[in-house]
Amino acid sequence: MKIVIDGMGGDYAPSVVVEGCIEAIRELSNIEMIITGPEDIISKELNKHEYNTDKISILNANEVITNNEHPVMAVRRKKDSSISKALNLVKNGKADAVISAGSTGAFLAGATLIIGRIKGVNRPALAPIMPGKDGPFMIIDCGANAECKPINLVQFAQMGEVYFENILKVKTPSVGLINIGAEEEKGNELTKEAHKLLQECNLNFVGNVEPRDIPQGKVNVLVCDGFIGNTVLKMYEGVAQSIFSTLKKEIMSSFTTKMGGVLLKPVFEKFKKDYDYSEYGGAAFLGVNGICIKAHGSSDSKAIKNAIRQAINFYENDVITKIKVHIEDKMV
Amino acid sequence: MKIVIDGMGGDYAPSVVVEGCIEAIRELSNIEMIITGPEDIISKELNKHEYNTDKISILNANEVITNNEHPVMAVRRKKDSSISKALNLVKNGKADAVISAGSTGAFLAGATLIIGRIKGVNRPALAPIMPGKDGPFMIIDCGANAECKPINLVQFAQMGEVYFENILKVKTPSVGLINIGAEEEKGNELTKEAHKLLQECNLNFVGNVEPRDIPQGKVNVLVCDGFIGNTVLKMYEGVAQSIFSTLKKEIMSSFTTKMGGVLLKPVFEKFKKDYDYSEYGGAAFLGVNGICIKAHGSSDSKAIKNAIRQAINFYENDVITKIKVHIEDKMV
Repeated sequence: MKIVIDGMGGDYAPSVVVEGCIEAIRELSNIEMIITGPEDIISKELNKHEYNTDKISILNANEVITNNEHPVMAVRRKKDSSISKALNLVKNGKADAVISAGSTGAFLAGATLIIGRIKGVNRPALAPIMPGKDGPFMIIDCGANAECKPINLVQFAQMGEVYFENILKVKTPSVGLINIGAEEEKGNELTKEAHKLLQECNLNFVGNVEPRDIPQGKVNVLVCDGFIGNTVLKMYEGVAQSIFSTLKKEIMSSFTTKMGGVLLKPVFEKFKKDYDYSEYGGAAFLGVNGICIKAHGSSDSKAIKNAIRQAINFYENDVITKIKVHIEDKMV
Repeated sequence: MKIVIDGMGGDYAPSVVVEGCIEAIRELSNIEMIITGPEDIISKELNKHEYNTDKISILNANEVITNNEHPVMAVRRKKDSSISKALNLVKNGKADAVISAGSTGAFLAGATLIIGRIKGVNRPALAPIMPGKDGPFMIIDCGANAECKPINLVQFAQMGEVYFENILKVKTPSVGLINIGAEEEKGNELTKEAHKLLQECNLNFVGNVEPRDIPQGKVNVLVCDGFIGNTVLKMYEGVAQSIFSTLKKEIMSSFTTKMGGVLLKPVFEKFKKDYDYSEYGGAAFLGVNGICIKAHGSSDSKAIKNAIRQAINFYENDVITKIKVHIEDKMV
């Protein structure tokens, strides 16, 4: 399997991207990596390591798209960017999956423009897997579509179901609708209408899930529009970060509390590991006609390696074909 | 000042409501409390305590509105409910403020129907004060309006500004728009249009605030529609609860970690206090023509007392008149 990765995407690119690729080819079998970016910069990074040179190649790309650019404009203009070149490789069948930790907007816009949608899917959606108290769960959409129609949410549920069943290996995963209230008549026009449609579908639909209960992880696939999904995702990160930075400051404030901190180190470490969503790789961009994984902007080499592992899983389980069949079935 | 409280509202009513009232009349001066509810039940609770009987009276109400009823229907039908009777007292000028820890929907619907809106305010909004890392902040609207127009968000900002300046004593508080992205062109139709309007207003508008940054508390007044606000509020609670229950479980798992927990007890207690939003009372329902405070459903007696203190502050600073003037000024 060939995987192309945007060598210049992410807060710590290109060094951690290159490191992640090297760790991946060491640990994971049957893969070849292609890294896009300025050849001199990428090869300089590669030369810092010893690795099997047959398994990693560079595709030269002289431009970089930053977070501050208008995504659609940037993808259209910068045809020689590391993101565009990577996406084109999948489009032309020269790579089986593409990964980027760079500009989310440019990656999503580029994937839709260059690779294109699966027939029947109105709106592709970003679908990260999050760590929950009772187990991992998916939020779909997490930011690709700030405005949605009820039918979009139904398709998110259908795609999420296929992905969760095949990648997380949960048979007939439960599907919930993120809503402000447990009763079906609660919410806004979008959620009220989506609730009706989801009930009529052949899905394991368990009804509304209130934001307070999201971190529990009791429901496998949570659907919502991209504005809500992105808000939930960012609150999850923001509240956890705020709590831990405050705790850390307080623990360091006296000798006794420092001692307590030392004794609780294994607890905090286990916690960090349990709540580390890079364990599940990046966010799959579901509904495009190719495997697209958006890694977190602050990914370290382990997160990059996990995104590569996720792309392999995606490929080996033939999730794209299964989504196609599932969406076509529902269209009949 | 006379304050009426819904004696039957809240998870632990009527006992904690009665206790909160008794604590309030002991600690706070110049107030008289009126408790609505079935006279026999409320007086039985009151008789468990010693208190100044001149300062607390009962207004008999034989019905109770629960969380499971349709709010508008319930308020219209149950005219003898503890919520309706309390709201009518403010409407008829026989009380200066009303507090309830009961059904949020019924309280908001009842306040709008019975007390009515301030002239010029299109949509009243629920506005809790939350604890942030850098200080308290307000989210407005937190659930009264699942659908909003851009002009509603501008009025939320104007009302929030008056409240924050007068109650939290911050001169010219900063106002932010909750949005998924820092740039002004980000978000959905509502946030894009609201961003333009907010820039044109005479407000200390600092632009978009991403959900990740909300817990910092760097911006004083955060405006959004009620669906987003409720999601943010519930995620704040849900993530914090999930983290602390997991930590607690892990701390109890071995002798060493239990010892660590003992040493860190002051840290956890300080943390609990810093993040306890009942310190700021309940959520003000701004835009109605009377002082309405929604206390949390799980309020204890201290939270009830703090909501009473908040109502006094609201009254003594004449916030209703100031909102009227502010909204009228902006209409010209």
